[in-house]
Amino acid sequence: MPYNHIALIGLGLISASIALAIRRKHKTVKITGTSRSIDTRNKARELGLCEVCENTKDAVKNADLIILCVPVGAMGSVFDEFAATLKEGATVTDVGSVKVEVIASIMPLLPFGVNFVPGHPLAGTENSGPESGFDSLFDNRWCLLTPIKQCPEASVQKVRSFWEGLGAKVDEMDAEHHDLVLAVTSHVPHLIAYTMVGVADDLSNITKSEVINYSAAGFRDFTRIAASDPTMWRDVFLNNKGASLEILGRFTEELTALQRAVRRGDGDLLFDYFTRTREVRRKILEAGQDTDQPNFGREKNN
Amino acid sequence: MPYNHIALIGLGLISASIALAIRRKHKTVKITGTSRSIDTRNKARELGLCEVCENTKDAVKNADLIILCVPVGAMGSVFDEFAATLKEGATVTDVGSVKVEVIASIMPLLPFGVNFVPGHPLAGTENSGPESGFDSLFDNRWCLLTPIKQCPEASVQKVRSFWEGLGAKVDEMDAEHHDLVLAVTSHVPHLIAYTMVGVADDLSNITKSEVINYSAAGFRDFTRIAASDPTMWRDVFLNNKGASLEILGRFTEELTALQRAVRRGDGDLLFDYFTRTREVRRKILEAGQDTDQPNFGREKNN
Repeated sequence: MPYNHIALIGLGLISASIALAIRRKHKTVKITGTSRSIDTRNKARELGLCEVCENTKDAVKNADLIILCVPVGAMGSVFDEFAATLKEGATVTDVGSVKVEVIASIMPLLPFGVNFVPGHPLAGTENSGPESGFDSLFDNRWCLLTPIKQCPEASVQKVRSFWEGLGAKVDEMDAEHHDLVLAVTSHVPHLIAYTMVGVADDLSNITKSEVINYSAAGFRDFTRIAASDPTMWRDVFLNNKGASLEILGRFTEELTALQRAVRRGDGDLLFDYFTRTREVRRKILEAGQDTDQPNFGREKNN
Repeated sequence: MPYNHIALIGLGLISASIALAIRRKHKTVKITGTSRSIDTRNKARELGLCEVCENTKDAVKNADLIILCVPVGAMGSVFDEFAATLKEGATVTDVGSVKVEVIASIMPLLPFGVNFVPGHPLAGTENSGPESGFDSLFDNRWCLLTPIKQCPEASVQKVRSFWEGLGAKVDEMDAEHHDLVLAVTSHVPHLIAYTMVGVADDLSNITKSEVINYSAAGFRDFTRIAASDPTMWRDVFLNNKGASLEILGRFTEELTALQRAVRRGDGDLLFDYFTRTREVRRKILEAGQDTDQPNFGREKNN
């Protein structure tokens, strides 16, 4: 563990899991943390996640590593509260799903002698709040770092080994590329899932209990995705606008082509398309990124 | 168990699971079955699923209940092979995801003295083939029956108690309504998932390994849905064209509105939409249709 004192800014699912994952192996590291909400601070205290402080300035005092775990739209203003009080040599990182805009909001506020290493652990569930955290959330999951050119390589390496210590695999890429990759693999899929669940909720000739009881595999997965934290996702779209719109445009184009095939009864086109996408799934299983257990590994009686 | 001899036409995931679920409790019921593919017949024999016959006529000989477990586009032609050889008093049912078109293809071929009770168990995984079957697939899942007016109530009740004996809950509805409900809860979500996976596979500025390694929760779920059997899904869309296009139209409308909100930076609209859909998820959990285990109940190290 390359840090003696870690400060968690925001106390939700991710920071709670970070605290629990640190504690698995490192009993002596000091962990402080805070949240804007008094309820969340109280819950974190009850759970014994870390030393809970009343404000960000107290939480970051003398910290070696400060992890910003707030929605991407709040990163800049929250950082501004305490940036000037950071000790020289401290490192700041974050867990935001968007990198270009977060870098743009943090860098102008960064004090001399403090380094910022933007990060994004690809892990989470649809649940929110400190009580949703668990210590194995990052095990075998990727954490992407998007280092800034002027940041010393040693600082990046320390953040890398911090995440590896939590069980994650670490990769580095350019921030713009990160935002495009995530638009495809996460952001647009979420928007689509939200949309489909909204459509179902709106239909007047189908009762809500029918939608709920007869939610087959496809839709059930969508509702899970669409249950994620609304503030976090609003901020993702507002802050990754360019890449999201680019991927949405491509999605609409493809969907229109498939819709036309349905209308015309072009079975060959549908069959070929569905065969090609099946291959992508096979490769994800091979890469160990998911399980092929029956019923998706869920308990069968739920 | 209201039948002494059950014939399975088609030997995929669903019929294998039916055979295994029958055997859990009913050791003496005769189960025969067949598949068009010699490989599938051999695999079913190896697995000891049932008495495997070389053709449909042999499989249905003297059967009390015949279950059509082939893609919906093949129901009519497969039924035509053996319809005339069915014994009087036999009942035919099916497991197709579409009901109006299946009824339209079966009814003109139905011999006097044989009843058809259309059915659809809402259960399955993204895997195919007899080796993917398991005996608890239908436990606590819904099976929808869409009875035809002229069918005697006693026949419907027997099919109902058959499915209940396999662990399922049974509900009845009109065939047209079924097709609309399923277009929302299953068919269109599948088409959307296929589309999103296709978009990712097409992007030239993102490598396939990036898509595969960094497939976060949203996309990973889509690839699972998009891994389902291509023949089955081609047939679903060709045979539930009206309802699918109706729901796709509504989906595109809603998505366009959200896309516009992203472009304009309308955070309030996004936040309200994402909050509303979260509620649908909460109700599905309350109805016991899914689990909220961390990491979606998947093994954490996979």
